[in-house]
Amino acid sequence: MALSTRLTERFGISHPIVSAPMAFAAGGRLAAAVSESGGLGLIGGGYGDRAWLTEQLAQVGSSPFGCGFITWSLARQPELLDLVLERGPKAVFLSFGDPAPFAPRIKEAGAALICQVQTRRDAAHALDCGADVIVAQGAEAGGHGEIRATFTLVPEVADLIRQRAPDTLLCAAGGVGDGRGLAAALMLGADGVLVGSRLWATQEANVGPRMHAAALAANGDDTIRSQVMDLARKLDWPPRYTARVLKNTYIARWHGREAELMSVADEEAAKYRAAWAADDPEGSNTFVGEAVGLIADVVPARDVIQRMVAEAEEQLQRFRRT
Amino acid sequence: MALSTRLTERFGISHPIVSAPMAFAAGGRLAAAVSESGGLGLIGGGYGDRAWLTEQLAQVGSSPFGCGFITWSLARQPELLDLVLERGPKAVFLSFGDPAPFAPRIKEAGAALICQVQTRRDAAHALDCGADVIVAQGAEAGGHGEIRATFTLVPEVADLIRQRAPDTLLCAAGGVGDGRGLAAALMLGADGVLVGSRLWATQEANVGPRMHAAALAANGDDTIRSQVMDLARKLDWPPRYTARVLKNTYIARWHGREAELMSVADEEAAKYRAAWAADDPEGSNTFVGEAVGLIADVVPARDVIQRMVAEAEEQLQRFRRT
Repeated sequence: MALSTRLTERFGISHPIVSAPMAFAAGGRLAAAVSESGGLGLIGGGYGDRAWLTEQLAQVGSSPFGCGFITWSLARQPELLDLVLERGPKAVFLSFGDPAPFAPRIKEAGAALICQVQTRRDAAHALDCGADVIVAQGAEAGGHGEIRATFTLVPEVADLIRQRAPDTLLCAAGGVGDGRGLAAALMLGADGVLVGSRLWATQEANVGPRMHAAALAANGDDTIRSQVMDLARKLDWPPRYTARVLKNTYIARWHGREAELMSVADEEAAKYRAAWAADDPEGSNTFVGEAVGLIADVVPARDVIQRMVAEAEEQLQRFRRT
Repeated sequence: MALSTRLTERFGISHPIVSAPMAFAAGGRLAAAVSESGGLGLIGGGYGDRAWLTEQLAQVGSSPFGCGFITWSLARQPELLDLVLERGPKAVFLSFGDPAPFAPRIKEAGAALICQVQTRRDAAHALDCGADVIVAQGAEAGGHGEIRATFTLVPEVADLIRQRAPDTLLCAAGGVGDGRGLAAALMLGADGVLVGSRLWATQEANVGPRMHAAALAANGDDTIRSQVMDLARKLDWPPRYTARVLKNTYIARWHGREAELMSVADEEAAKYRAAWAADDPEGSNTFVGEAVGLIADVVPARDVIQRMVAEAEEQLQRFRRT
């Protein structure tokens, strides 16, 4: 394999591609499809709905899989980690909070500890926690994140890893929408990539047709980072994190008017959740990153992965020394 | 040359590296050093100080060069364009404003029109204006810019160029601090890169030792986008643009208190300018991007370029099909 990396070797996978554990969108069906296509599929454990998570774990079947958690949310329901570890995941992915309380159990269970970080500082802490894989997530990512960019965070974390814990692997997250992004991530020093939006736009993702249509109609200028969707859903996100979504009616109405939104939170939360359930891309939010401008179709996950690898290989060959 | 690209062929240069026309920092000495090292050196025409610009044009000597302008500022002193065009520049670089009023004169004079853009929308307009080169600048860049990220803006603009004007060249700007960034930019579909911060940290840049020292001590988490430095200098930047600088005492004091800063603008402007003149990195600002975390020394520009090319070639060879 031309794209064999330390990640493919360590996890015994064919392609250096991990699916992002997107809350709601990344269920067992997507995780299984990604793993069956040669990558590593992750279920998005999200905000900790035990019944939903149990169902997704069943759907993944006998495929290799991992599971992601929103760390500050997992801290409120730590028993969900056991639910996942009992199923023998290849990896547990922690993001948005301190991985330290969970790291020992994950590693003792034989799962790889993947820590997603948004800053160099958090990368250093993840190494202290014994992360097997660091995912350096840039602000161009869809959904929750922070402000550093993929293009600089990845090489800076690569340098840190080389100095401090050279056996730790590194994946790039944020903006990887095609094979150009995969090839670029490898050049920046990553061992592989985490793919969110591009796999969100697949047939196996738990995403409604109107949200998909909104994304296909958008380009990369059409996204924004905001906190209104968390206020609207009454979720206790730490203030350092915002979520990237498509600009829409909801954003136009509330972004910049957060205090007012909080004053009518009960009423607005109900409306938001109803719009979300109705797959309404104007009354709730379409969670995608800047890579939305590189997405032109909703296809099976297998096609996404095959195209991505073929395009990356083609790009890399262009500059072959002759 | 392994790193021969359309950019090196079109401009007759050895390496696909263009120096950013950083206001104040990028004078004739840096532009000449970059061109003599095989790249294309640009003078930063900045806010339009005729005497300073005349001096820089003299300092560039017989080396090939280009000149950049802050477009909204050039519109107030359009005669400065003549001053530059009389010297036979290889290129004129326009950013932060509408290039349309200047494009015909630049192209008639035989210089390449380089348009730096921060969004897909602006890239489409630059193509309408007949840009010979588009520079897609991500928000990780130092100094002025906007919010899109290099990692997604570059491939999205590459797709636009391929559809609309395939002979137009593309450079990536923002976050390119070493050979990994150069190689990644080529993978993303760029024909070359614009390098700012890394060339700011050279002996030929017009940067004082205390600013350089502040940058060497910083990592990529230590920068921020703000408008306080423009309010402090009483510059009329359009509100869509912010500037990335190192966080410091000045930022801690004023960022988020812009209205108050404007109410004491005269007094603060004098203090800011005095601090700037004194090379004071706490009382004024150090203009660098997130790539500051990849910079460990202040060296001659030639060393920066040679290292960058060697490292990029090494990265590209790692994934050669065997």
